[in-house]
Amino acid sequence: MSHAPANDRTRVRRLPERGAYDAATVHAIIDAVFVSHVGFTIDDQPFVIPVLHARDGDRLLLHGASSSRLLRHIAAGNPLCVCITTIDGLVLAKTAFNQSVNYRSVVILGQGSLIDDPDAKLGALATLTNRLVPGQWDHVRRPSAQEIKATSIVAVPITEASAKVRSGPPKDDPEDQVLPAWAGIIPISQVMGPPVAASYSDPAIPLPSHLEALLSVGRA
Amino acid sequence: MSHAPANDRTRVRRLPERGAYDAATVHAIIDAVFVSHVGFTIDDQPFVIPVLHARDGDRLLLHGASSSRLLRHIAAGNPLCVCITTIDGLVLAKTAFNQSVNYRSVVILGQGSLIDDPDAKLGALATLTNRLVPGQWDHVRRPSAQEIKATSIVAVPITEASAKVRSGPPKDDPEDQVLPAWAGIIPISQVMGPPVAASYSDPAIPLPSHLEALLSVGRA
Repeated sequence: MSHAPANDRTRVRRLPERGAYDAATVHAIIDAVFVSHVGFTIDDQPFVIPVLHARDGDRLLLHGASSSRLLRHIAAGNPLCVCITTIDGLVLAKTAFNQSVNYRSVVILGQGSLIDDPDAKLGALATLTNRLVPGQWDHVRRPSAQEIKATSIVAVPITEASAKVRSGPPKDDPEDQVLPAWAGIIPISQVMGPPVAASYSDPAIPLPSHLEALLSVGRA
Repeated sequence: MSHAPANDRTRVRRLPERGAYDAATVHAIIDAVFVSHVGFTIDDQPFVIPVLHARDGDRLLLHGASSSRLLRHIAAGNPLCVCITTIDGLVLAKTAFNQSVNYRSVVILGQGSLIDDPDAKLGALATLTNRLVPGQWDHVRRPSAQEIKATSIVAVPITEASAKVRSGPPKDDPEDQVLPAWAGIIPISQVMGPPVAASYSDPAIPLPSHLEALLSVGRA
């Protein structure tokens, strides 16, 4: 396992019992979320942009338009921080101080590198397309040479990474647990609604099985 | 309206037709999402952390533990970027190149300042508590002086901000629209599940009306 143990930069300092550094935990959170928040610095100004991602083993793939100055900055190997977060529930305690949310988050520090090799790039595009819906790559027209050129894909190694997770009920101090208030959690989940066909989608073409499968699972 | 028009730092350059700079659009996105991704730079290394937020008029309130070194860095007035994003659906085109997601995002550039005044801080804590569930502040025990001290609240003016929104069906070129594939969107929404009472929540205490109201609305 190439995943690195916690170091001074990735160790969870606040509430260290919520920290995790094993690849299985980190990878599962990455796979559960569609969007990365990618942080970088230009002329001392931090920027954070949302970017769709997919995981390819120990690498995070990010993609965007080749013409994007932000993606060019990322692709140039400048230091990055990628944060991936999902909120799993409201944590409602009997005290204002202990209100919280259940969440899972991953922070990755590192540098991106452009995937330039045409075969590798096509493979990465397949991974990114299938990340939205498994099986989608085989359902659609493959990208043309021009379309491949218009897309940049950056790989970030998932080595210097940490996860932070809060789950379970609220935590009130014993003397507050007897207060006459309701305490508990309200779970939050992402659900997929019924598909809406585009006006140019031939009604004679039924919803393909890989999309049907997606809806029955209700994947977040 | 104190909201600033687009400038060189906030103007949406990629797909400018997706950009919006009016306060109503920016505020609605902030209010629809629970978590901010806050970017800042320490020793040339960018960091991004997830922080719960609430909006108080033209200010974004962020809170965390006073002992957090990251929150101290934010509170010290260092340059920040706050990104707030929600994914609204999968956009499935007939071509790999045009796969996308529907989303709403806001980027705010600026600096934070610590809310120190005790009355202002208590008011901000009420705003943050009611952000999770409207009405929750009046249901729970107010924070003690010690608890107030243990929490830091940072206000970031929502002035230098931009929104970016993609909505609607996929966009394939006319020659691709006749391909024998399904095209359309699969909406994604956040839903709240049935509440789960904590083991120390007296079963004789029913779910309070402000929580019932939340569930019936299904607010994201």
